Amino acid sequence: MTTASICTIGDEILIGQILDTNSAFISKALGKAGIKVVQMVSCSDSASDIMNTVKRCLRASDIVITTGGLGPTKDDITKAVLARLSGSKRMKTSRKQLSIIKNILLSRGIEMLDINRAQADVPENCTVIPNSIGTAPVMQFKFGKERFGRNNLLFAMPGVPFETENATADVIAAIQAHYKLSKIFHRTVCTFGIAESTLSKQIEDWENSLPQNLHLAYLPNPVLGVRLRLSIYGIGQKEGLEELDRYTESLKKILGNAVYGQGETNPQTVIGEMLLERGATVSTAESCTGGYLAHLLTEIAGSSRYYWGSVVSYDNSVKMNTLGVSPKTVKKYGVVSSQCVKEMAEGVRRVIGTTYSIATSGIAGPGGGSPDKPVGTLWMAVSGPNGTVTKTMVSKSTRMINIKRFAASALDLLRRSLLDGTI
Amino acid sequence: MTTASICTIGDEILIGQILDTNSAFISKALGKAGIKVVQMVSCSDSASDIMNTVKRCLRASDIVITTGGLGPTKDDITKAVLARLSGSKRMKTSRKQLSIIKNILLSRGIEMLDINRAQADVPENCTVIPNSIGTAPVMQFKFGKERFGRNNLLFAMPGVPFETENATADVIAAIQAHYKLSKIFHRTVCTFGIAESTLSKQIEDWENSLPQNLHLAYLPNPVLGVRLRLSIYGIGQKEGLEELDRYTESLKKILGNAVYGQGETNPQTVIGEMLLERGATVSTAESCTGGYLAHLLTEIAGSSRYYWGSVVSYDNSVKMNTLGVSPKTVKKYGVVSSQCVKEMAEGVRRVIGTTYSIATSGIAGPGGGSPDKPVGTLWMAVSGPNGTVTKTMVSKSTRMINIKRFAASALDLLRRSLLDGTI
Repeated sequence: MTTASICTIGDEILIGQILDTNSAFISKALGKAGIKVVQMVSCSDSASDIMNTVKRCLRASDIVITTGGLGPTKDDITKAVLARLSGSKRMKTSRKQLSIIKNILLSRGIEMLDINRAQADVPENCTVIPNSIGTAPVMQFKFGKERFGRNNLLFAMPGVPFETENATADVIAAIQAHYKLSKIFHRTVCTFGIAESTLSKQIEDWENSLPQNLHLAYLPNPVLGVRLRLSIYGIGQKEGLEELDRYTESLKKILGNAVYGQGETNPQTVIGEMLLERGATVSTAESCTGGYLAHLLTEIAGSSRYYWGSVVSYDNSVKMNTLGVSPKTVKKYGVVSSQCVKEMAEGVRRVIGTTYSIATSGIAGPGGGSPDKPVGTLWMAVSGPNGTVTKTMVSKSTRMINIKRFAASALDLLRRSLLDGTI
Repeated sequence: MTTASICTIGDEILIGQILDTNSAFISKALGKAGIKVVQMVSCSDSASDIMNTVKRCLRASDIVITTGGLGPTKDDITKAVLARLSGSKRMKTSRKQLSIIKNILLSRGIEMLDINRAQADVPENCTVIPNSIGTAPVMQFKFGKERFGRNNLLFAMPGVPFETENATADVIAAIQAHYKLSKIFHRTVCTFGIAESTLSKQIEDWENSLPQNLHLAYLPNPVLGVRLRLSIYGIGQKEGLEELDRYTESLKKILGNAVYGQGETNPQTVIGEMLLERGATVSTAESCTGGYLAHLLTEIAGSSRYYWGSVVSYDNSVKMNTLGVSPKTVKKYGVVSSQCVKEMAEGVRRVIGTTYSIATSGIAGPGGGSPDKPVGTLWMAVSGPNGTVTKTMVSKSTRMINIKRFAASALDLLRRSLLDGTI
């Protein structure tokens, strides 16, 4: 199996100031392409550290991917080190990258300086993979067996996470062009609303029936739910896809409405498609999710076709004045209650004038809460022409994870209610 | 300087399923104690991988901290590997840990099995640091210079993040009891609104004047702006902090209002503090940022003291009906215009009844845009008792990064306008 090491470069990771998210992202993409990551390493911005770490990685695996240390400033020295490692005597200019740099700076109204221009200069012994959304290109180096005992490819990627993520597909394509990779086929079944351990119990018999060459992975995420990834190895494309179809179908039968989609999707996209199909629109009224629910919906390009807007009623006055929640309800039941979210959902549907609406009110923490409404309590409601449905849940996590889980759970209530026809 | 390596053990990290947060946590704690982390490594759950990685780390640094692989199940083999490495012929039982395990299982109503009991058994050549909130204790090993060329300490910590975090202070104390530590001191200056390359040009002379033992790092982020981290080594605490004070002050003089804070902060927190100081409140009216601006503000616990709410006016009808933007304005100037965001900001300030307000309207992409208003164009406005200020910008990035940069830029306009007194 083709192997890879991932090497993140930068003092900010080593001193713990920045969490390394690039390694996990790249590793997932490599795994999907059938490449096994054998180690992840972080090293400092010192030339000798980078050199030693990269060399060690080249000896340990076929592919080495570095991220970071490619910025325009003095502390970024990865390029100089790789020039040395690859025996490049001079630099060459990537015209394509230079033109991207020009456009980026122009659009930001920033004057082009020599240090910006220099980002398009790369060691002569590398191939450039242009970075369309950032100034530093990806550099690809080849090393023959005589160097590190392997037929190596080395990629130096920029460290800014969105640039790394954006360039990963190109890097995978370059790897596929170079090595003969054994094929893996994947299928992901996306579920929401069942905890990982409950899910694993529910599908135990099905899981035990899987053939040896079919691997199952659980991928839990507060917004995406638990995704189940099936991967099949050592089989032709036609047979592999047929096997995946068969096991996916039997899995979906067991899980029913908990399955919201397949492949690279998310609850917001699925709900958008359901609304478009129905020619319907939706609005949101948010308290504890504080705009995150609106953000999830508007993260999707084109969401303006079905999503009209939100009232984030963080202060109770907004719940009453803008959404029309009755002061009596607030007094009698509190704002974290079935009654309050019902009035919020019905209020925002009326005020914004949409087919459906979603409302949330809860205690994201860390402060607040009471014995009967502990921190992590959410009340959510969805409303439509056929009525309003409310539901409660408790999430015991950090403020940020609670907010994410709350917003996604409210979206899921809309999805299930649309399927049931209850609203 | 005393050096450390952090080694996380587990396939789930290598395949990218789990984000390694332990390394950053431990590293921050080590850095504060004056220990320099020279590398972070992740390796698989295989015995040979663990053995080779740990040995390499012991040769490369004085201290090695491993996390993970200490669970009760068969795939957790760190303890067996370390027993071998330390030449332990037999295991000994930590009575203290055994009693903790009993209590934990009792409180969860779980019967104690042999595999649970075995978690209190450790290699005879280690010292136990009991883990008060989990079943696996921390094991401390010493290796003399004859083994790996250094006076080494090795700590094996459990991998569950809250157990790791809980045990870190005890590990630091054990390290401090063993080594005479030299200190590192850090200071981070947070800026917003100046691109990294422009910033580096602006502070070039200052940067060149830094002494050899003072290191500068640039940390760019769409929401946090560019943070500048100064680190000083090989100097006493008093002198070190004085040096940092001096260079921080001269840096702040050069950058003026672009500096929004110092240390572990973010624009939302700083703005929250500014509003609390003034006894003021804020509301938001969002089009293209679609709730993300509200989310940034409400991400901060306690933000309800100054943040009242948002109208996410994704559809134009909401801009006109709820925010009171004039249809004439929309028709004459379009919704992505200075005029429209001005009316949005003034409208939401009036509707929600806050001291200040922020509004955004733009084109997050990837679709939309026109020659004079390309994709990535934002108009933003802030409004207050003294008036309204509008501003435009262009961000050429992915939809998600554009949204983040838009929201953070609008926050920054509020911060600067509060400082200027223009609103």
